[in-house]
Amino acid sequence: MTADTSLSPDGTEYRLPGPDESANEKQALDAITLQQRNLGRGIVVVQGMGFVGAVMAAIVADAESRRGEPIYFVHGHQRPSRRSFWKIPVINSGKPPVNADDPEIPEIFSRCVVDKKTLRSTWHDHVYELADIVVVDIQLDATKPTLGKAAEGYCDLTAFRDGIRTIGRHIKPDTLVLVETTVPPGTCEKIVKPTLVEEFQKRRIDTSQNPPRVAHSYERVMPGKQYVSSIRNFWRTYGGVDDVSANLAREFLCNVLDVAHFPLYLMASTTASEMAKVLENTYRAANIALMLEWALLAEKAGVNLFDVIRSIRVRKGTHDNMCRPSLGVGGYCLTKDPILANWAATHLLQTDVKLEYAVRSVDSNDLMPLHTFDIIHQALDGELTGKMVALLGASYLQDVGDTRHSPSATLWKSLVEAGAVVTVHDPLVKTWPELKEASVHKDLTQCLKGADIVVFAVGHRDYLALDPAYVVRATGKTPLIVDCSDFLTDQKIREYLRLRCSVRGLGKGHIRSLNFP
Amino acid sequence: MTADTSLSPDGTEYRLPGPDESANEKQALDAITLQQRNLGRGIVVVQGMGFVGAVMAAIVADAESRRGEPIYFVHGHQRPSRRSFWKIPVINSGKPPVNADDPEIPEIFSRCVVDKKTLRSTWHDHVYELADIVVVDIQLDATKPTLGKAAEGYCDLTAFRDGIRTIGRHIKPDTLVLVETTVPPGTCEKIVKPTLVEEFQKRRIDTSQNPPRVAHSYERVMPGKQYVSSIRNFWRTYGGVDDVSANLAREFLCNVLDVAHFPLYLMASTTASEMAKVLENTYRAANIALMLEWALLAEKAGVNLFDVIRSIRVRKGTHDNMCRPSLGVGGYCLTKDPILANWAATHLLQTDVKLEYAVRSVDSNDLMPLHTFDIIHQALDGELTGKMVALLGASYLQDVGDTRHSPSATLWKSLVEAGAVVTVHDPLVKTWPELKEASVHKDLTQCLKGADIVVFAVGHRDYLALDPAYVVRATGKTPLIVDCSDFLTDQKIREYLRLRCSVRGLGKGHIRSLNFP
Repeated sequence: MTADTSLSPDGTEYRLPGPDESANEKQALDAITLQQRNLGRGIVVVQGMGFVGAVMAAIVADAESRRGEPIYFVHGHQRPSRRSFWKIPVINSGKPPVNADDPEIPEIFSRCVVDKKTLRSTWHDHVYELADIVVVDIQLDATKPTLGKAAEGYCDLTAFRDGIRTIGRHIKPDTLVLVETTVPPGTCEKIVKPTLVEEFQKRRIDTSQNPPRVAHSYERVMPGKQYVSSIRNFWRTYGGVDDVSANLAREFLCNVLDVAHFPLYLMASTTASEMAKVLENTYRAANIALMLEWALLAEKAGVNLFDVIRSIRVRKGTHDNMCRPSLGVGGYCLTKDPILANWAATHLLQTDVKLEYAVRSVDSNDLMPLHTFDIIHQALDGELTGKMVALLGASYLQDVGDTRHSPSATLWKSLVEAGAVVTVHDPLVKTWPELKEASVHKDLTQCLKGADIVVFAVGHRDYLALDPAYVVRATGKTPLIVDCSDFLTDQKIREYLRLRCSVRGLGKGHIRSLNFP
Repeated sequence: MTADTSLSPDGTEYRLPGPDESANEKQALDAITLQQRNLGRGIVVVQGMGFVGAVMAAIVADAESRRGEPIYFVHGHQRPSRRSFWKIPVINSGKPPVNADDPEIPEIFSRCVVDKKTLRSTWHDHVYELADIVVVDIQLDATKPTLGKAAEGYCDLTAFRDGIRTIGRHIKPDTLVLVETTVPPGTCEKIVKPTLVEEFQKRRIDTSQNPPRVAHSYERVMPGKQYVSSIRNFWRTYGGVDDVSANLAREFLCNVLDVAHFPLYLMASTTASEMAKVLENTYRAANIALMLEWALLAEKAGVNLFDVIRSIRVRKGTHDNMCRPSLGVGGYCLTKDPILANWAATHLLQTDVKLEYAVRSVDSNDLMPLHTFDIIHQALDGELTGKMVALLGASYLQDVGDTRHSPSATLWKSLVEAGAVVTVHDPLVKTWPELKEASVHKDLTQCLKGADIVVFAVGHRDYLALDPAYVVRATGKTPLIVDCSDFLTDQKIREYLRLRCSVRGLGKGHIRSLNFP
């Protein structure tokens, strides 16, 4: 890859645009926009063609009036970086720039780009001058300097603020800026609006007459086969910095989402909407974190915690969402949103509130993989050096190929550090960008070969279906079998025991009572 | 009250039975039991005529076969103590020994004692010799020596073990002992069964041939208008120390409960069943505890947390049971069950596991009322001496008259300690046994008279309906209004503000933005 190209995941190199292409692209943007305006369509720019932004852009481009007419034309904006520029030509060829298991994703891109011609992607900032609505979908991370010390976690808003600044330099004063990124509560009021005001004032716009229009609304996307639907056909909370902004956001969301079945929920402020998002995910993170200590107790008390949980979950309405302990918690939301909230409490909202449960939950969940390490370590009397481990599952969620913040990575590292030789398998993971040292096998038999320890780390369907006789035969040994979250039925455990394997299970203290039939 | 009488809540004195009455009562028990056996009925003894035991006894006595025949005759056993003996004559007169808002309670006692004659109460231990099944409903408390240090909490099993010993001295070897009391996990295996074995062996029963039959099953009673139904028509988890015990428990529960609509859930052991109960309540306690720090943040960030929660709760299945912060957490379950679990981990199950989330949640919830105190303290710049406070609500739950571990007591104490003069009102509370120093007004106007501060502590329907103009007029002042858990709508808050009151609300940071219309 040379300095001026961008490499797509399928291996195609795309040349970055040079300064000479600026005028042409600008002209193209003007021409398309004029044409689309003449068709009566609103102009939407989505900033950031990432995991959410790209799909959101397609959903907006796919929205139709009752008469079946497209409501908006969408410009998807992506900075021309080497890392991401490739997304622009890929989108403009009618293909999605994201990998997902949802068959609707390739369909919607092809339909909007090729058939309806309501979606196009660009790198040119001029596009913001043309927008009626800018939807902000820039990625925003929390940084956790030390594993297990989430209280030290922080949020660097520099890049996010730069993105907003770019918008402020270009947009018409009455353009709605709708932030969809999960942000620390207070961001729209303390960062987005003041940054836009600053840029407006540089442009000599009278912000007392033309205050920036800012709103916040968050998606609740779920990776997997319902990816598009989980954005379009699901409840939305939103709020604006003022009534005009809230009303503009409402109109937009009503045009784009299935609000008939999933009514919008208006909050009194953007801060309230932002807070709802991070509390929602903190709630989930806290409920998972609670379970680890019960798993430890169940293991030592000879109890199957998963059975206990199943019995409690019959209580509909109050207890049916009780979470299970597992290898750990990954993905992009539960691992960082509590930290965004805790950091915002001090740094954006200027309070002295510490969100101790939130932070503690992240720590518990981040460290959860170490318990599986302990289980293995103890079963082998600490002798891990040179032991072959087959780690089944690299993604953070069952039946999904997403590896972001996967707890398998933490387990992998601790095993390798202890001297074990770890081979990884995942049927859905093509690359593991967060753990380049680990190669991910596609061939399960190959991965299992010679394994002293087989770890059922993720509940992919393929793994749940595995025949113990096959697993044991493939290793060529009588391996230690480790079940990280009730992936093995008692019947399967008995079969492994009958095949002379040792079996351990997180939260499964009853295993020692499972005798041969 | 003389030494040998027992005073019922309605003021009637009952003479305790003397030694001379033993033979008569024994004879009566034998005669009734023989007669009932001849009618083909099983004999059940319920040990402990408390809040759950008395109602459970009535439910068992009310159970009928498909042909409409009573299945069991029930002896309700109560020790002849001065504190509780009165329950026996009250029950035997066809009246319930418990106060509850459920109209089915007086009905079921009258029906079973007077009409069907399937329920009778006794103090005589001889009754255990006659039992096919003993249901244990003895009260079992956790002790918290210091407020806010739940980790030091413990469970004194002496009285409970004595109760089991009494059973063991008398029962037939094949009698099922079904423990319904919420106990520290491990109790049936480590306390109940060994105690019964000890007593059996003293009686020269060969326990290898006749092991004690012990099972555990927990109710999920909810105080309020559905008291009976919440025991009878609800899911049950159960487990036995062996298969025979589990099967006997199953047969009994199937006869007594609506298992057609609420199927039983069998656990592999009594410890698992015991663990399910305390985890179930810990889950709830932890979810409430999580919310306090978000209330603090919302207050300082100008956000209405309750609105945030409402917006999140639209997510059915995963988030619709999110709890609200409030004055605090009371009642008999959430305040102690996490402590039973944590204590059991060390003292019964002999593990080194500390249930830190569980314990911390109890602390947060126990200390929660101090935040309302802080709100008041801050609003008055710390000048509480001589201030008149009207505390609306003494019970621990809305529309229920139950004061056990009510957070209102903690608030009352902290206000009085700070020099305030607190008057209490509750439409449903007759006496406040846990806080005898506080008299509970029945007349709201009288309670409000002269109040500088009005605290909406509990969400009783009567309070939600109150007209701000009436409240302010009744005080004769412009009091500080304090809303402990979203009991006041924004419209009501605006009215109070218009009447020149100050208003504060836990978790309601938006109040300062509520201007007069």
